[in-house]
Amino acid sequence: MEELIRFGEKYFDEVEIAVYRTRGVGVSIELNEISMAAVKSRSITVIRGIAGGRLGLAVVDSEEKEEVKRAIEMAYRMARLNSRDEKWVSLPEPGKYHEPFKPNEELREASPDVLVEMAVRGIKLAREKDPNAVVVGGGGGVGWEESHVVNSHGIDVFQTGGAAHIYFELVGRKGDTVTPGIFEFDARRDLNLDVEGVVERTLQKIQWAYSVKSSKNEEVPVILGPWATAGLLYFALFPAFSGERLVKETTPLGDKLGQQIASEIISIADDPFHELSISPVIADGEGVPTRRNELIKKGVFRGFVWDNYWAKVKGVESTGNGVRDLRSGGISIGLHNVVIENGRKSLEEMISEIDHGYLVDGLQGAHSSNPDNGNFAVTANPAFLIENGEVVGSSVFLIAGNIYELLKQAYEVSREVTVMPVMQTVITPYIAFENVRIAGK
Amino acid sequence: MEELIRFGEKYFDEVEIAVYRTRGVGVSIELNEISMAAVKSRSITVIRGIAGGRLGLAVVDSEEKEEVKRAIEMAYRMARLNSRDEKWVSLPEPGKYHEPFKPNEELREASPDVLVEMAVRGIKLAREKDPNAVVVGGGGGVGWEESHVVNSHGIDVFQTGGAAHIYFELVGRKGDTVTPGIFEFDARRDLNLDVEGVVERTLQKIQWAYSVKSSKNEEVPVILGPWATAGLLYFALFPAFSGERLVKETTPLGDKLGQQIASEIISIADDPFHELSISPVIADGEGVPTRRNELIKKGVFRGFVWDNYWAKVKGVESTGNGVRDLRSGGISIGLHNVVIENGRKSLEEMISEIDHGYLVDGLQGAHSSNPDNGNFAVTANPAFLIENGEVVGSSVFLIAGNIYELLKQAYEVSREVTVMPVMQTVITPYIAFENVRIAGK
Repeated sequence: MEELIRFGEKYFDEVEIAVYRTRGVGVSIELNEISMAAVKSRSITVIRGIAGGRLGLAVVDSEEKEEVKRAIEMAYRMARLNSRDEKWVSLPEPGKYHEPFKPNEELREASPDVLVEMAVRGIKLAREKDPNAVVVGGGGGVGWEESHVVNSHGIDVFQTGGAAHIYFELVGRKGDTVTPGIFEFDARRDLNLDVEGVVERTLQKIQWAYSVKSSKNEEVPVILGPWATAGLLYFALFPAFSGERLVKETTPLGDKLGQQIASEIISIADDPFHELSISPVIADGEGVPTRRNELIKKGVFRGFVWDNYWAKVKGVESTGNGVRDLRSGGISIGLHNVVIENGRKSLEEMISEIDHGYLVDGLQGAHSSNPDNGNFAVTANPAFLIENGEVVGSSVFLIAGNIYELLKQAYEVSREVTVMPVMQTVITPYIAFENVRIAGK
Repeated sequence: MEELIRFGEKYFDEVEIAVYRTRGVGVSIELNEISMAAVKSRSITVIRGIAGGRLGLAVVDSEEKEEVKRAIEMAYRMARLNSRDEKWVSLPEPGKYHEPFKPNEELREASPDVLVEMAVRGIKLAREKDPNAVVVGGGGGVGWEESHVVNSHGIDVFQTGGAAHIYFELVGRKGDTVTPGIFEFDARRDLNLDVEGVVERTLQKIQWAYSVKSSKNEEVPVILGPWATAGLLYFALFPAFSGERLVKETTPLGDKLGQQIASEIISIADDPFHELSISPVIADGEGVPTRRNELIKKGVFRGFVWDNYWAKVKGVESTGNGVRDLRSGGISIGLHNVVIENGRKSLEEMISEIDHGYLVDGLQGAHSSNPDNGNFAVTANPAFLIENGEVVGSSVFLIAGNIYELLKQAYEVSREVTVMPVMQTVITPYIAFENVRIAGK
């Protein structure tokens, strides 16, 4: 890499070379069968160079030296045609890094057979336990990644990691009732995926969903499940923590530092070192040391997250939240591993304390949320009706509201936490909210 | 490949090996600058084998012999764990193929520099012609693909092709008016992309969009532009032509063969050999000869399209519409190159004949259309208001309707045709519909 950096410096004032080498195996499930097994591997090199304040960015599907050199030249020709970025300061400098995480070597060369076996086991279990259930979809994967980020200011970080996941989507058919698709996940840094637990949790919900209940307009306590929470916060809340949005004045949190923006039971951090994280990282996509960043502590807003570019524009320090998009090669502000603090009560206890309310598993339409103000309008489906402390059936309704108002209504977080590896990893308990206004459908 | 097929036959009754070798270069545009240049290349091999009616499907990111052999074994282990597909008949047999298309060799090793140059030229032109315009996005690509599909029944088809595309998305800001993002494409089988034409068409629309007009509830003539037409038909109409849906009884066309389902001016064919097609193919994803399939001729529904599997289930012949998804490896029924027949009048004449109506450029929400019945509900944005034969401004409104009712209201198709390379290639004129009920927004 040293030689390539020297080559890059012939053209650029500053240059960064990031190499990503990935290998993955996967299986897909369709209608009770394994529909596909795959082995994928690739190398990607991203060049970012700055010449006279002009940026060049090239991506090449290779780590071969001559190809990378050609990509450096390509990035340079592109930089020359761009205009000067007046806001540009510099690429990052090295810092003090957390001790590297030891990946599980089992994952490096995992065979798809492991996943095929798990998928078959899960399908068999689901159909034995509930002959009315169909495993309509699902899949599993084991991924391994090696990344090497080097720049002309001395950054040189090599990281290795791997993770495995599995999920099943079930639909139950009983008489005229066809349940919505219900799914559950497991994701870990080793191969000990809890296939039985995933299937059993899914079947429990299918059981609830066989009894369809109507919903009406009312204010009720609502418990959001991990998938609902992760989806809603990803679109409605997390973007508001971005330092870029602070600079551009498109976050509602601009003047809220140190203020109560959620109920006291809500604490949220971005913790790349958390023991359940499926991809712990000691440096971000541009080689800046990562750290645990508190976002909300006991309801109080604690601060924004930054990548190198926007931090330098604002004159603050990068929080190690520069995340690289391997498709575009670009760096943008993102969270690594969101952890929502859990509580003491079990989900069962939380349900038992509700006379009339809902446990919401999925929220549809969360992607249309507006992070500029926190407004959202979603369909709760599947949602499970709780009567006298027990789940008695499933329902569908609408919730239109504002994430900051909702967060103030939170009154309990469960002891159980789930690792949700969708879009962004979110480790979350079940969260109960009081007086949620719902519209029957 | 012969050796690999023989190896596969050791395990399977029938086996298919499909190799895809792709190379592509691309550039992205963001806020008046080139944000990325990329070179990508990969090889994918898909194995489909059937042993005792059980299907195994493996995908591997390689065409190296030993890797492919391992994938064959992996597919076999997977097949053994699946249950027998009672509907399975057999993989396809070879047929009579159209003469191969000669690809443009310029595309094989194209440099991203060509695209960088075009992108810079387009950005420069846009900003010179309209200082209020910002090129918010866009991009270009040159792709080259070689595919080789072989099976144990003697199919052995090698195809080569390439295409280039470019698009620009502009937003205009004038006073308090910010126009919606407006974009235009060009796609061809050579590098002669019409950058100037694309930019000029976009600027024309930006010009129209500076004047914002309100819309109200009414019935008016509406001209749908190529992007709006392609998007709406892709989701609301094209799935209905699938033979699989005929078998599963999820198409509203089940009993409509030979019947008038659209106005007489509407003729639609899937024509893989059309001169403007950006990816002409002589065989589909499973090696079956492709052909021109008439879907609607002068408003009359002419027939369904089939892949090998569903054709054999139904006892008909495959129409060469087995399309391979390179991510899942699977074959499903799809169209290659939809061609909507054009007419004699120019778009300008069509506009000049409207006293009060709209020219609709984009339709949002088309993906929520229901292909089971053709119902759709979309937001027309941008839509351009026509008064006394001239475009006088832009507006937004809703159209909720049914695609089959809409198609009967078609009264004119333009002389101009556009190649829309989005989702699926659709070569389409502007289409005018009478008495379209719109809801002002």
